Amino acid sequence: MEKLRIGMVGYKFMGKAHSHAYRDLPMFFPNIVHPEMKVICGRDESGVSAAAKQFGWEEYATDWKTLLERDDIDYINAPSDAHKEIALAAAKAGKHVFCEKPLALTLKDSREMLEVVEACGVKHMVGFNYRFAPAVILAKKLLDEGKLGEIYHFRACFLQDWLVDPNFPLAWRLQKEIAGSGSHGDLGAHLIDLAHYLIGDIEEVIGMSKTFIKERPIPAQMSGLTAKGSNSEEKAAVTVDDATLFLARFANGALGSFEATRFAAGHRCTNSFELNGSKGSVIFDFERMNELQVYFTDDDEDVQGFRRVLATDPSHAFAENWWPPGHTIGYEHTFIHEVVELMEAFRENRQPVPNFRDGVKCQQVLEAVDLSIEKRQWIRISDV
Amino acid sequence: MEKLRIGMVGYKFMGKAHSHAYRDLPMFFPNIVHPEMKVICGRDESGVSAAAKQFGWEEYATDWKTLLERDDIDYINAPSDAHKEIALAAAKAGKHVFCEKPLALTLKDSREMLEVVEACGVKHMVGFNYRFAPAVILAKKLLDEGKLGEIYHFRACFLQDWLVDPNFPLAWRLQKEIAGSGSHGDLGAHLIDLAHYLIGDIEEVIGMSKTFIKERPIPAQMSGLTAKGSNSEEKAAVTVDDATLFLARFANGALGSFEATRFAAGHRCTNSFELNGSKGSVIFDFERMNELQVYFTDDDEDVQGFRRVLATDPSHAFAENWWPPGHTIGYEHTFIHEVVELMEAFRENRQPVPNFRDGVKCQQVLEAVDLSIEKRQWIRISDV
Amino acid sequence: MEKLRIGMVGYKFMGKAHSHAYRDLPMFFPNIVHPEMKVICGRDESGVSAAAKQFGWEEYATDWKTLLERDDIDYINAPSDAHKEIALAAAKAGKHVFCEKPLALTLKDSREMLEVVEACGVKHMVGFNYRFAPAVILAKKLLDEGKLGEIYHFRACFLQDWLVDPNFPLAWRLQKEIAGSGSHGDLGAHLIDLAHYLIGDIEEVIGMSKTFIKERPIPAQMSGLTAKGSNSEEKAAVTVDDATLFLARFANGALGSFEATRFAAGHRCTNSFELNGSKGSVIFDFERMNELQVYFTDDDEDVQGFRRVLATDPSHAFAENWWPPGHTIGYEHTFIHEVVELMEAFRENRQPVPNFRDGVKCQQVLEAVDLSIEKRQWIRISDV
Amino acid sequence: MEKLRIGMVGYKFMGKAHSHAYRDLPMFFPNIVHPEMKVICGRDESGVSAAAKQFGWEEYATDWKTLLERDDIDYINAPSDAHKEIALAAAKAGKHVFCEKPLALTLKDSREMLEVVEACGVKHMVGFNYRFAPAVILAKKLLDEGKLGEIYHFRACFLQDWLVDPNFPLAWRLQKEIAGSGSHGDLGAHLIDLAHYLIGDIEEVIGMSKTFIKERPIPAQMSGLTAKGSNSEEKAAVTVDDATLFLARFANGALGSFEATRFAAGHRCTNSFELNGSKGSVIFDFERMNELQVYFTDDDEDVQGFRRVLATDPSHAFAENWWPPGHTIGYEHTFIHEVVELMEAFRENRQPVPNFRDGVKCQQVLEAVDLSIEKRQWIRISDV
Repeated sequence: MEKLRIGMVGYKFMGKAHSHAYRDLPMFFPNIVHPEMKVICGRDESGVSAAAKQFGWEEYATDWKTLLERDDIDYINAPSDAHKEIALAAAKAGKHVFCEKPLALTLKDSREMLEVVEACGVKHMVGFNYRFAPAVILAKKLLDEGKLGEIYHFRACFLQDWLVDPNFPLAWRLQKEIAGSGSHGDLGAHLIDLAHYLIGDIEEVIGMSKTFIKERPIPAQMSGLTAKGSNSEEKAAVTVDDATLFLARFANGALGSFEATRFAAGHRCTNSFELNGSKGSVIFDFERMNELQVYFTDDDEDVQGFRRVLATDPSHAFAENWWPPGHTIGYEHTFIHEVVELMEAFRENRQPVPNFRDGVKCQQVLEAVDLSIEKRQWIRISDV
Repeated sequence: MEKLRIGMVGYKFMGKAHSHAYRDLPMFFPNIVHPEMKVICGRDESGVSAAAKQFGWEEYATDWKTLLERDDIDYINAPSDAHKEIALAAAKAGKHVFCEKPLALTLKDSREMLEVVEACGVKHMVGFNYRFAPAVILAKKLLDEGKLGEIYHFRACFLQDWLVDPNFPLAWRLQKEIAGSGSHGDLGAHLIDLAHYLIGDIEEVIGMSKTFIKERPIPAQMSGLTAKGSNSEEKAAVTVDDATLFLARFANGALGSFEATRFAAGHRCTNSFELNGSKGSVIFDFERMNELQVYFTDDDEDVQGFRRVLATDPSHAFAENWWPPGHTIGYEHTFIHEVVELMEAFRENRQPVPNFRDGVKCQQVLEAVDLSIEKRQWIRISDV
Repeated sequence: MEKLRIGMVGYKFMGKAHSHAYRDLPMFFPNIVHPEMKVICGRDESGVSAAAKQFGWEEYATDWKTLLERDDIDYINAPSDAHKEIALAAAKAGKHVFCEKPLALTLKDSREMLEVVEACGVKHMVGFNYRFAPAVILAKKLLDEGKLGEIYHFRACFLQDWLVDPNFPLAWRLQKEIAGSGSHGDLGAHLIDLAHYLIGDIEEVIGMSKTFIKERPIPAQMSGLTAKGSNSEEKAAVTVDDATLFLARFANGALGSFEATRFAAGHRCTNSFELNGSKGSVIFDFERMNELQVYFTDDDEDVQGFRRVLATDPSHAFAENWWPPGHTIGYEHTFIHEVVELMEAFRENRQPVPNFRDGVKCQQVLEAVDLSIEKRQWIRISDV
Repeated sequence: MEKLRIGMVGYKFMGKAHSHAYRDLPMFFPNIVHPEMKVICGRDESGVSAAAKQFGWEEYATDWKTLLERDDIDYINAPSDAHKEIALAAAKAGKHVFCEKPLALTLKDSREMLEVVEACGVKHMVGFNYRFAPAVILAKKLLDEGKLGEIYHFRACFLQDWLVDPNFPLAWRLQKEIAGSGSHGDLGAHLIDLAHYLIGDIEEVIGMSKTFIKERPIPAQMSGLTAKGSNSEEKAAVTVDDATLFLARFANGALGSFEATRFAAGHRCTNSFELNGSKGSVIFDFERMNELQVYFTDDDEDVQGFRRVLATDPSHAFAENWWPPGHTIGYEHTFIHEVVELMEAFRENRQPVPNFRDGVKCQQVLEAVDLSIEKRQWIRISDV
């Protein structure tokens, strides 16, 4: 592959994050092939034309179908919501395709998506961007090197607090028909993927969930994560979960605990996990995403303790492409690293990771949890 | 009441902690009635006689039954293991009684114990000492004052790591017939009691548990928490859980998550909880027991954040009896505060808190979790 | 002003940081005038031509003097070392000018630079980028609003550890004739500027400094902060300070303590300060640059404690231009914010802040400290 | 030695801390000789008689001179203030003697005290209790084992905030004729002693100090650290320093920075130090006194970071005498460990450490700093 010409659908929160990644990549990773920012697409012409200019896209379009007809587009980056139709059509048109997580609103849909992209022989990727924090990659490296030993525990929480205010309006993420799911699909999906990445397959789950605030004001306008104002005193029902927790048994014997909520006052974005093994433990918290707490059982007796490792040294993934040790990076960099993986996959002619297979695996657990909540019993992943 | 004359059964870890509490109390709480350290009791004469001298007891005995026959003993402090028989006999002999947690090996036993102490009209207390950390009391105060609002989440972990080494011997705490339960009854019991204290009743639970290391060397000798050496290469089965996790629904609508394990490398004694409400959150970790992290949603917009409150100010419970602000206290102080509550209860002629009612409530949840594990389904607390 | 066309001299560490800032700005700050990346300049043609392409400059040049002759360049961004000559010539050619800190190798030079830019009527800026961390701006805001009261203490440390290895080669930053100064001018300069920004003028200082490792291997090649390999066993003298500490009295009565070192093992880039006032305190550490610890004396008695504020909320400077709350930014963002100030200054037709005046003030303190070390006595800033 | 019979002068803050140490020792350190709590002495009969009862002393007295005449007293524990006269008289009466820090109001006095105790051949100890925090002892151990290498930096702060309120009354600690010194002698003395203990001799110093609030209300009553109420609106002058900072050069080449203040809002008792060596660093903060942060330069490249070591493991000093790992101790335990050292010294027939020699050394630095402030120049320790 000598070039990758991108068509991007969506220009809000994720659209901005991905656009920036494409744009920033060449500067910090000069020695790999760089994507070309061809067309950005959105329904609102004034919005998308402004975004095209702001983000640096060559062109804009208002109908995503036109992207599929063009020869000069190789790769479709689908939006956060409603990406199934786009992804399927793109693959059938021979385009490589990227989807946000969760991969689909249902497991069935996600499986269909995987089938189609595989049948079409295109490359596919899914947006589990937290895999690309250098501190997370360090955790994976320690695991792969056996430095943490056999894994006993994985406990993960994704805690946010933007819904604690009962007057926060009914954003699209709170509507099941658009978002598919609430905290579970939005935040829990990331935790599940990290669990797959770090620990491996989950065998069975049981969960519980709750919508604490049942009705919210209808918003005046929505954008990205947020929704502002409300043009009336009218309220409508929140149709997704505010919080979902579940227990899990992993195939390798580890015990897992998962919690996703938007009702944890004081936590803006605590995407955190801890992992305890026979030789050591690690702790990660996205609010301090440059850090990994690392513990080894074979440290000298009198100096055992969690080390606060700043994953900005040359020995850490991607770090040498950025700044000297101790000079931290931020949220947006996970997307840039994601694109590095994408481009490397093209160069090596393999599927990028994570891809739709990972998306389906995640969806399977999400749905198993939902089923376990509905049926009030343990659900084996292999049964959904 | 003008005096409280104590007979203590057991002289190892808990025996030492309680003895110290009785002994230290008068110095820091001069204005309350002080217990009299009459007799300490243990089966091994040389051990218990040394302990009596070391801890400051007037006498020692080798048969606990003799304590019940004496007129000069008002209160029996029963040992960690096998306290049912002692507690029942003590109550029937008209003695007030203290038991360690968990209150009994089974719910049935604990209920019988409660019935008997109530029928006998004696005072009873149970050793949930973590309630008496000033930082925990601060959390309770904020809750009671409504400063945290309606509670949405309670997540609690009691993480230890003393069993990570597979050659750690088979201490009594690993034998079901003596300990009744493993991490669940030992550590989880504390979390459940804190949940009751802070949040209120639990309605239903579902759990999972595991014994990671199935067999361990038979120890040469045992003492307190620990067991040292092994007199042979023989191993025997671990008959309790190494780790137990469960989800819970509280009567007030909050969602709970609990985990107790002795396999969390790097955590010596992380007895921690977090509580998220509509107006704020608190975080506690026993390894930093003088601190409570506190968050309020109504802090000014630009300075919202978890506060690290050191519960050593005059406004904090018990603090003025100790040292100036910033001069911390330790684990043993929770026991001293426990005795303050005991003596206050006698003065006010009421039951101390926590008492056997709390012990039964805790046991009910412990057993419901066990049942949920056995039956692989949600169990309503009211059904056990 | 409708446009700002930039000529940049230097393409290593700082060259990359500034280039990225110019390039990234339009995407996140669409509503301000954007700089045009005209020419990047460096002595090594193959290096600078590659950098031009990588960073997105329209052209490259190998002689900075040619930049001054061009009509289509408005603003010269001078390199870290030896910027005096360039800055003077640029100003005389009517170009606006940016210099790295410290502004010059000597106070005399920096004063001459200020005189010339003022005489020439051009705009000037100096690269104290840490002022632009949102958490630092929050500290300033709290100060300006009087929320910290009268200031008693300012203590600041800039701790790095890249020189702890005695075999680390003799990089340019260790050579007085190029760098002017060691930790003092490199790291201490940032602390002094933050002190000026936050607290105000310093009245007098006394310092001490040391070069712990007197000789180091001559490096094979150098780049940015680092120097790699060594082509011989030859060593040469380190001619700058490894560490410099000083005490200071501020004009407003506060007491200051400053330390800059490259010998603090474990600290990759701890640029930290604490400020204690009559109403509150703040603590900042660049390794956790999104956070500010904030304490208020008038918080309720029982919940006083340092708050960990994540400066990523809409109420924090620049935050709404980036990501949702809790999604952190990194080192490079300070440079982008710096360019925002630059462009705003042009729009409002005022000098950007910090500018050469701030550079001179910093240099004055740097030199006063050097003098205090040489003379072993307190030096009044107004005397140098 | 078979017994040590103690006469204690003073019964407030320190009196309580020491009494408790004597009383608690036998319980946790059964295998050493235990002090006998003979007589406690204070001027106010009702106060001291109550204290005697509360703390567990056999008798009380109101004139300390009577203690010296008794044959059944071996050891005099002198009070915080005005201990010179008592110490001299005690030594001359053949009594062993303990004094609080700082050893005296002046260096001259402290030297006289050392001469006399040496001439009299009695044992002497000085109350630098922070040496006895297990985490501090761990730092010393790592240093002695060479695990931190050659030391480059020592920076220490003792930050308190009880004087931030301008209406806090004029306690005895704010009056030069009683306290001798303010933050410098009270808090700085501890830092200096820790520096001597960990790093070694100081060669020269230069300092600055300030009294931020010049006048304070006259208190109605005083006790221990605190003073309560004020019986009039009358104010009187604060005659000691509120804050003192100084720079130091150590004999071994390390650079030191010291700060003691009672004006650091938010810091109740931050007695902290950091030490950077060629092989590692340690950080201690008394508010988390069970912890030592430890960094090693030779840790594997990708997992370098400060370890949070909880000094409660069996490998840590004194820890096995207390509770299982992770069960923390508090402020008062430093005094108990101090008495262990005292008793061990008697057993081994050597001087306890720290003793009056350490007191004099500390006083020498204190006074050198004072002199450096007065003369506004560096002062060599050997010159005072």
